[in-house]
Amino acid sequence: MPATDAKGTLTAEHIQQFKTILGDTYVLSDEENLTHYGHDETEHLQYPPEVVLKPRTAAEIAAIMKICNKDLIPVTPRGAGTGLSGGALPHLGGVLLSTERMNSILSIDERNLQVITEPGVITEVLQNAVKEKGLFYPPDPSSRGSCFIGGNIAENSGGPKAVKYGVVKDYVLNLEVVLPNGEIIWTGANVLKNSTGYNLTQLLVGSEGTLGIVTKIVLKLIPFPKFDLLMLVPFASLEKASEAVSAIFRAGFVPSALELVEIDALKIVSKMVESTAVPVDDSIAAHLIIEVDGNNMDVLMNEMESIAALLTQFDAGEIFFADDAQQKAELWKLRRRVAEAVKTSGYTIEEDTVVPRAELPALIKGVKELGKQYGFHAVCYGHAGDGNLHIRINHPTIKNSHGNAEMTEALRALFELVKKLGGTISGEHGIGLIQKPYMTTVFRDANLYIMREIKKAFDPNNILNAGKIFDLN
Amino acid sequence: MPATDAKGTLTAEHIQQFKTILGDTYVLSDEENLTHYGHDETEHLQYPPEVVLKPRTAAEIAAIMKICNKDLIPVTPRGAGTGLSGGALPHLGGVLLSTERMNSILSIDERNLQVITEPGVITEVLQNAVKEKGLFYPPDPSSRGSCFIGGNIAENSGGPKAVKYGVVKDYVLNLEVVLPNGEIIWTGANVLKNSTGYNLTQLLVGSEGTLGIVTKIVLKLIPFPKFDLLMLVPFASLEKASEAVSAIFRAGFVPSALELVEIDALKIVSKMVESTAVPVDDSIAAHLIIEVDGNNMDVLMNEMESIAALLTQFDAGEIFFADDAQQKAELWKLRRRVAEAVKTSGYTIEEDTVVPRAELPALIKGVKELGKQYGFHAVCYGHAGDGNLHIRINHPTIKNSHGNAEMTEALRALFELVKKLGGTISGEHGIGLIQKPYMTTVFRDANLYIMREIKKAFDPNNILNAGKIFDLN
Repeated sequence: MPATDAKGTLTAEHIQQFKTILGDTYVLSDEENLTHYGHDETEHLQYPPEVVLKPRTAAEIAAIMKICNKDLIPVTPRGAGTGLSGGALPHLGGVLLSTERMNSILSIDERNLQVITEPGVITEVLQNAVKEKGLFYPPDPSSRGSCFIGGNIAENSGGPKAVKYGVVKDYVLNLEVVLPNGEIIWTGANVLKNSTGYNLTQLLVGSEGTLGIVTKIVLKLIPFPKFDLLMLVPFASLEKASEAVSAIFRAGFVPSALELVEIDALKIVSKMVESTAVPVDDSIAAHLIIEVDGNNMDVLMNEMESIAALLTQFDAGEIFFADDAQQKAELWKLRRRVAEAVKTSGYTIEEDTVVPRAELPALIKGVKELGKQYGFHAVCYGHAGDGNLHIRINHPTIKNSHGNAEMTEALRALFELVKKLGGTISGEHGIGLIQKPYMTTVFRDANLYIMREIKKAFDPNNILNAGKIFDLN
Repeated sequence: MPATDAKGTLTAEHIQQFKTILGDTYVLSDEENLTHYGHDETEHLQYPPEVVLKPRTAAEIAAIMKICNKDLIPVTPRGAGTGLSGGALPHLGGVLLSTERMNSILSIDERNLQVITEPGVITEVLQNAVKEKGLFYPPDPSSRGSCFIGGNIAENSGGPKAVKYGVVKDYVLNLEVVLPNGEIIWTGANVLKNSTGYNLTQLLVGSEGTLGIVTKIVLKLIPFPKFDLLMLVPFASLEKASEAVSAIFRAGFVPSALELVEIDALKIVSKMVESTAVPVDDSIAAHLIIEVDGNNMDVLMNEMESIAALLTQFDAGEIFFADDAQQKAELWKLRRRVAEAVKTSGYTIEEDTVVPRAELPALIKGVKELGKQYGFHAVCYGHAGDGNLHIRINHPTIKNSHGNAEMTEALRALFELVKKLGGTISGEHGIGLIQKPYMTTVFRDANLYIMREIKKAFDPNNILNAGKIFDLN
């Protein structure tokens, strides 16, 4: 069991107090549970907690936090455990606080186009519930079938739709939060515009569970677009594909998705899901998946045709138009399962770089060069329309970047390139545990000083998800 | 000259140091300038600074801040002085730091749809510059012809377009900021998605010049929509007009503007600008101004017709469609000059309430009742589509709310109603000096504690725009 250095020790007495608050059923410390809650989807890392707590209410969390704050017990909040930066790993032991039982959608306000939800609702469940009312919550991480909306808030998640509709931060109006000292606050108000004091709502979004535990979420919704069209476009070179991306926007189009998948990744995922939907031949280096949506089919058809015409300037191959819902679903399934497929195939190290979109070709070129230099193979895919490139690394011997000096050096070189291109480390996965060493690559000491002081303002005892994003001391 | 209590004293030696940094021309302490820079557009308040500084560069501001931070001289940053909450009022004396010379658009990046600008650029100038490249920066406060983009960042401004396109915070990607200690940082990166540490960019937006002085701004741009249509719709009752607002969204429409103007306000502004564009008769209580925009005229025509049909359910009168650019400009001129017109007519006290949009009828009803109770007349107008209602108050004897016990009581009652409706104090004007007493109406102590600690993290000596939003001690 990992040491809780410089922290308080979790005792049998604490366990008893937790059982009084939650009932015996929701205080778990058997080996199977400790193992399960000791990992998320980040590399192959494993850090078991000392106890797993499953509260149902903000009041229960407040009671737990008061105890932990008093006795300096580390607390790691966790959603569905689909994170890719280690934000939910209880690397200091202590309490793992799972929000899985807080899984109710509290109200869908059709008058104001808002939804109030608890954090443990699966993102896709939430999306489907509001869709039944004709409403749309766009942010759709690839893991939306299993991730929690609370985790999405913590990491400021994106997904394919972000390119047109924005990321999680653009939909969060107000948050109920349990602070590390057990106080419960609302960060803002249920309004579309707000200039009332510092924006604590936006500060909480993307703070990776280090500032407070989100217990209720008010999200803005928009009308659900009536139609969408989807096409798949092959390119003979990765560079041409990524050049085409910024040309689409320069021509005045705003697709509702603009994804890039390198051919190696597509081969792997096609094999895994046993799909032959996408032709995979040696003349193809990468595909773009392009979707447009809206309320007028004629307009969308025109848009698609104009985009297709534009892409001929970038040596695009034969375009495949998804004709019906089934073909669209098949394409999206392939795209959504890329991460899982390549990880299973040995690409265990994932990066979440983001650059201004016109710099994608330079980034991709740099990645391939670094691969040669450091002896790894990388596949690239992701939200090209946003300049957000996921880079999966397969190294013959190094399977975790965390704690590995050689891979740390390689990644630092990658992030220096990203910084030089005007970009940064993470577009949607967060810093968590594993990207922490690179914060100094993109930020000055003064930035990190301020972030640390903000952390201290919320959590003076540094008990809540300590050692994530940055070390406090 | 106001006392700089508990602060350092500005001496002749400081003035000499400022002259060495800026040159004599840009260090002003004559009576005329002190008077001019002693007010903004907030009520009838006047607080002259002790000296006015006009730096040209971030480095000059850094040098000034180092001196002021060391000797505890209060510094109040100022854009164009169009603020409505007193954020730019140097109520503690000391240094007034004007950004008016930092007025260059540094680059328009057509490859990435971004603009980098200095803070002293007039918002409309920026909008026109990017429009020449086919690009669109939507946030358009009514004062856009005179306000600075830097001030818009400070207050997280909105404007009519916010209802479809969002407010300033939705366009700010990255900020160069001089911290109170003179350090210069960039808050983020020039990217569309960012999950890399706490969101200092969003924390700075709307922080009203209390955390740092913004010296460069990176904004996201979008393609400029090709067409727009505008209509003016009269209603026999204010309640019906505001009920119609949320019905439009519930029916699936997202107008690019949805403004409400009460008839009294329209009468005043029509008279001021000598316009007969809008018929003003006794059967009309309020108008909605509704705009749709997009790239396909047929779609827009259909949308406008559908909205018009929907409005008949709310007893709308005869709809006026603006036929050409001139008619549109005339309508917008009327709308944009309402604030100035009603202020000139004695409506000196302005509130910037925001509620979930379906609560507008309840808010308007409450405002009128409070008017009867406290003996004032109020006119309502504003961004109804966002639930953002400007309330202008004309009291026979009280012309400033700031420091007036009776008006403070009335406004506290107003904000308690707003809070009850799920709303908050300010949608786009900020808290500044005059809304400070009401922060406790909408926030708990724990919220204010955290805001104060954040302020201390940036500005431990409390020299930068001290006493705005909240008092530190």
